[in-house]
Amino acid sequence: MSNIKAVLEYDGTNYSGWQIQRNTQQTVQQKLEDSLQKLNKNPVGVTAAGRTDAGAHALGQVVNFDLDVDIPADRIPAALNSELPADILCRHAEQIESEFHARYDNRGKKYRYRILNRSLRSVFVRNYVYHIYPELKLEKMIRAAAAVKGEHDFTAFQAKGSSTEDTVRTINKIAIKEKSSEYWFEFIGDGFLYKMIRIIMGTLIEIGMEKRDPDSINHIFQSREREEAGFTAPAKGLTLVEVYY
Amino acid sequence: MSNIKAVLEYDGTNYSGWQIQRNTQQTVQQKLEDSLQKLNKNPVGVTAAGRTDAGAHALGQVVNFDLDVDIPADRIPAALNSELPADILCRHAEQIESEFHARYDNRGKKYRYRILNRSLRSVFVRNYVYHIYPELKLEKMIRAAAAVKGEHDFTAFQAKGSSTEDTVRTINKIAIKEKSSEYWFEFIGDGFLYKMIRIIMGTLIEIGMEKRDPDSINHIFQSREREEAGFTAPAKGLTLVEVYY
Repeated sequence: MSNIKAVLEYDGTNYSGWQIQRNTQQTVQQKLEDSLQKLNKNPVGVTAAGRTDAGAHALGQVVNFDLDVDIPADRIPAALNSELPADILCRHAEQIESEFHARYDNRGKKYRYRILNRSLRSVFVRNYVYHIYPELKLEKMIRAAAAVKGEHDFTAFQAKGSSTEDTVRTINKIAIKEKSSEYWFEFIGDGFLYKMIRIIMGTLIEIGMEKRDPDSINHIFQSREREEAGFTAPAKGLTLVEVYY
Repeated sequence: MSNIKAVLEYDGTNYSGWQIQRNTQQTVQQKLEDSLQKLNKNPVGVTAAGRTDAGAHALGQVVNFDLDVDIPADRIPAALNSELPADILCRHAEQIESEFHARYDNRGKKYRYRILNRSLRSVFVRNYVYHIYPELKLEKMIRAAAAVKGEHDFTAFQAKGSSTEDTVRTINKIAIKEKSSEYWFEFIGDGFLYKMIRIIMGTLIEIGMEKRDPDSINHIFQSREREEAGFTAPAKGLTLVEVYY
């Protein structure tokens, strides 16, 4: 038995998210475990750094799994990629100490949220951006994002029904980049609650559309009420870029 | 009746090319005509600058069509885009003289062919690039491309079975760009024979893989035999970028 750490890229458009579900919907984890079983003969269970939502994407999801077969780690990507569908890719694999756990051991993650802000939608990035027609007031969104940064109790920015007890998280950095007609919001933090980035983005978008005041962020934090924050922005704009260990 | 010139963007992945076919396969032209009929009430016939192959894409396909309804041309994109599927977009529309014909009147076109040249395939551009694993010798491809440029009888670079009588075409420019792990080959010319760019690209790729000599281009032209040129590179790497009038 050897513990393998692997880095995955996937287009989540055609998946019901990362995690295996009891019904028949296809998930990225299911596809990966099916492909690994072909290499390993025996079933393989996979642990991911984080679960991505239905329709969300990954450039650098990290997973670990045990293999029974003796295959050099540097040959795993090519072997696995020949089994995986075209929308899932293993970028890298390495042998790692048996104690390594992709979820418990990660120190933080980087996510990107892409907004296409112009009147015309786009054909080629249609599954990777959230298209917003009205012109967003970026400077207001930047001001609000600065208030989101730092250590906070993010209860108000967590999907209802979550059972997480410790709701304090730290966002170390929010970088905002302009790429032709797109805005990229990049978040680096030690951890993120369920749908937290999508709710932050929904709130920032309402601020950019002048439906909400940039100075309302502190009030939302203090309320600890989901209803005080904005809508949940669509998953297709979200990509898990990197996981830190 | 007013003649409308429109510019289209489309992702050709899920289409059997531009042109309407007798069988049930879906084509871009069919989708466009169906959408236009919803605006116009009566059926609308559309003429395109050029037919794109199954799986090939467009950033700037140009079409013209007659409408019976009196709709301001600048409102056509929004009206049409609400009817068109997510992988077809009308970028622009304008009223134009009744004699204008998108196919007969164009002076030239610009096409782009994208190659992804690295060991790993890509998830996000998988439908827009041709993935080649072995490292291509770019300098040899550049040398061969220079010999392709100019006015030639392109019979050897035309798909077999074409009935075109005048096979002389001029390629005014071939620009080769490096974009991280991609090579973009951009062709500007007065016209292109059936599958001509894909056969040129297949020939250049064989040269880049050192299966063929860079100096073989002139011999291929002189032979006027399809068999002397390289394979037909896959359509998914090809995009019609712009049409000139």
